[in-house]
Amino acid sequence: MSVERTLIHFPLDPASRQVRLALGEKKLPFTEQIERYWEHPERLAALNPSGLPPVLIEARGAIQTVVADSRAILEHLEERHPDYALLPDDAQGRAEARRLIAWFDRKFTDEVNGFLLHEKMEKRLLGLGAPELSALRRGRESLRQHLRMIEDLLTHRDWLAGGVLSLADLAAAAHLSVIDYMGEVPWEDFAATRHWYMRLKSRPSFRPLLADRFPGLPPAAHYDDLDF
Amino acid sequence: MSVERTLIHFPLDPASRQVRLALGEKKLPFTEQIERYWEHPERLAALNPSGLPPVLIEARGAIQTVVADSRAILEHLEERHPDYALLPDDAQGRAEARRLIAWFDRKFTDEVNGFLLHEKMEKRLLGLGAPELSALRRGRESLRQHLRMIEDLLTHRDWLAGGVLSLADLAAAAHLSVIDYMGEVPWEDFAATRHWYMRLKSRPSFRPLLADRFPGLPPAAHYDDLDF
Repeated sequence: MSVERTLIHFPLDPASRQVRLALGEKKLPFTEQIERYWEHPERLAALNPSGLPPVLIEARGAIQTVVADSRAILEHLEERHPDYALLPDDAQGRAEARRLIAWFDRKFTDEVNGFLLHEKMEKRLLGLGAPELSALRRGRESLRQHLRMIEDLLTHRDWLAGGVLSLADLAAAAHLSVIDYMGEVPWEDFAATRHWYMRLKSRPSFRPLLADRFPGLPPAAHYDDLDF
Repeated sequence: MSVERTLIHFPLDPASRQVRLALGEKKLPFTEQIERYWEHPERLAALNPSGLPPVLIEARGAIQTVVADSRAILEHLEERHPDYALLPDDAQGRAEARRLIAWFDRKFTDEVNGFLLHEKMEKRLLGLGAPELSALRRGRESLRQHLRMIEDLLTHRDWLAGGVLSLADLAAAAHLSVIDYMGEVPWEDFAATRHWYMRLKSRPSFRPLLADRFPGLPPAAHYDDLDF
């Protein structure tokens, strides 16, 4: 039976972007529904009590499966749609991919996005005024530390978790791509990371993300340039 | 080939406790190694760059698998040790269990443990002085909201994610058990949650947690009482 798939997401939300990339890599078509989650839409709260995107709905005839939280959706997609696998076959590779997803979802979010995205995007959405320079500086310093970590991994690996593209790459790219939209990634100082990101950017799964535009907040000039 | 298993953990860390409970439910024996993570031990950083417990090491002869991050470990255990499954069979049940793990690991941690555990345990460990009353009050108010959410789920379900015990129950119990050690759970106002916790507390997997004692910080009188 064919599956009708709907993704509830917000274009500049890193968690939502991970799922869009995974669906793209797995060539699973979906209808999108964009939710401005900071306005606390009831429709979203009914599907996910935490009120956050992304939420994936899969309908097989009358049977509907609702999956909330990006990591829950990624595990669901791996289990139910194993074609174009996004976790390595071996236990150590899977562990490494999952460790890195957790790293980006928790540590990168707290130390980088919590400053840069908060100051440059969330404050605008919530009408909280201009970015604070000290917070931007703190986010930028942390971003450099995280980029050094990525650069170290990529000096002895093709992809973040090892020899194959995995959810770890999608998680990292999703987070970095939003920061890149703001023009905040110092690519020139991280050659291996820039090359890795260029390879990801060229994949068909990335195209919809490069087309995202947020009203009143235009992207950096190089944002959708495949050879930046 | 037999597996030698080592868990690096800290007794009062909710993430570590989830993994101890899962290993207990799956009847998988392990050696434990306790790490005072706030002292930044090198041994831990070498296994998990984020410097946080838990880390699981499984050795099959010369082949060693290192799994860091509680959710990565829980997924690993489900995949590699499917006996005594801790995720429901159906996609919706699995999604619900994973949504709730994310809820506790992110939302409960930020809104409750970030205040109560920080003020009552972390400040003591780090020598940061006495708890702040306003922070304790905020944590206690949030705890009541989370307990109401749990109570609502348990009025129409036997276990948090549905009809069977799952990782969602272990995640919730791990977080609540540390708060309970501090005597901070108002059980008397949440009858269904208290009954659910009593059932969990009586399970053999819970016994090691009830025996935990932190020097200088004795548990609440009822902490290891099965009929509290």
